[in-house]
Amino acid sequence: MGLNFCFIGAGNLATQLSQAFRNKGFKITQVYSRTEQSAKTLADSLSTNYTTSVKDINKNADIYFVALKDSVFDEVLSQIDFENKFVVHCSGSLSLSALKSYTENIGVFYPLQTFSKTREVDFSEIPIFIESNSIQNEKLLLQIANEISGSVAVINSEKRKMLHISAVFACNFVNHLFTIAAEILKSKDIPFDVLKPLIIETAGKVQELEPEKAQTGPAVRFDENIINSHLNELKEFDDYQQLYRSISKSIFDHYNK
Amino acid sequence: MGLNFCFIGAGNLATQLSQAFRNKGFKITQVYSRTEQSAKTLADSLSTNYTTSVKDINKNADIYFVALKDSVFDEVLSQIDFENKFVVHCSGSLSLSALKSYTENIGVFYPLQTFSKTREVDFSEIPIFIESNSIQNEKLLLQIANEISGSVAVINSEKRKMLHISAVFACNFVNHLFTIAAEILKSKDIPFDVLKPLIIETAGKVQELEPEKAQTGPAVRFDENIINSHLNELKEFDDYQQLYRSISKSIFDHYNK
Repeated sequence: MGLNFCFIGAGNLATQLSQAFRNKGFKITQVYSRTEQSAKTLADSLSTNYTTSVKDINKNADIYFVALKDSVFDEVLSQIDFENKFVVHCSGSLSLSALKSYTENIGVFYPLQTFSKTREVDFSEIPIFIESNSIQNEKLLLQIANEISGSVAVINSEKRKMLHISAVFACNFVNHLFTIAAEILKSKDIPFDVLKPLIIETAGKVQELEPEKAQTGPAVRFDENIINSHLNELKEFDDYQQLYRSISKSIFDHYNK
Repeated sequence: MGLNFCFIGAGNLATQLSQAFRNKGFKITQVYSRTEQSAKTLADSLSTNYTTSVKDINKNADIYFVALKDSVFDEVLSQIDFENKFVVHCSGSLSLSALKSYTENIGVFYPLQTFSKTREVDFSEIPIFIESNSIQNEKLLLQIANEISGSVAVINSEKRKMLHISAVFACNFVNHLFTIAAEILKSKDIPFDVLKPLIIETAGKVQELEPEKAQTGPAVRFDENIINSHLNELKEFDDYQQLYRSISKSIFDHYNK
């Protein structure tokens, strides 16, 4: 498509998305990050230039992809004159209008995935959610998204926020339960490795079955003997005992309402 | 090895384990279940006999595998005269001694996995935890376990209970978070399908990285703006709002202690 992109941000998402674009023939002309090491590492991997100064962000990119933490979003963008170029953010939680004081051409490009800098992901299966202020801009984002993914949809900011919340439950909170499981095992010198096949199968099951129908274990059976014995066993992990109790109760309530 | 097994119970675990045994050349001589349909379905799949009467459980099996819900364990076993044959239970939460009033030869054979009747699993990767009352019985269980899995260990009842608790966190509770995510999405008419690649990647990440190091999202960054906006969005889901708050707090506490 012969388009030039500039990346504002060089974190996990910026790294994976810019590399996916580059692999599909888009040109990344520049990477900006406040952190020189991040900017340089990403720019090097893309064989492009970087800057840590907002003044040096170049003016001739076709689209500016903003992949910043929400907490520094306005602080960084308010220093850049985009000259009404097309600016697109990649955040699940920010609305489209978060960009409107910076340019007239605005959009959202939200890939629903968990990203790390060093773990490569297959973008072709990642759902990408698009939003824009005009039919023309929306069409351009759809074309770009369809180049890297087979699962692209237009969605408004309100729905995208719910998507993001659901992802927090299904990814961030799930990962924390893995952390808790690892800590409990460590207290008995058992390596986390023993849980890996179970974790893969738990994720695999809901690819085919609705999660509601995949539920097993003492809470859904309301097996009070086991639940109480587990709570007793967790007395040295006060915080996790509370979570055990409240998640078990939520499971019970879900199947008995 | 020319051994004959009798299965007491015909649920998810009994189904998958007996089929794994049969595929490795062990003979299942009989299936007992209180539910005729379950007993018949499993026995048919194993080309063997079944009974729903404890009186008709045959006396010449080499090992009796007990795969019953903990809540009916004693009720069923107290009606059977095992004539001191080798009886092995498959429960994560029951101790070895739960069997000692029924026979002198007792053991535990605990495969750490989530089972459904219809979803086939690859036993070769499932960790199996063994315990027994004698070196000789333990050796026999190890030999059997090694025939179906590449990951076998001897573990005592106390450690096995912690394994089971960790599995409740990493599987049952995780699945409930998937159920919550599905329900939240449904409220905005978004299909659960959009989360499937994220769920696979979340499970895939911790196969390589420690879960503690794989954590992402607003809670670990303590991004209060996003957290508060999510809590506000969840006000119609009172129960899930509470869980969002307590899991976010647990994440924050974990990384700030």
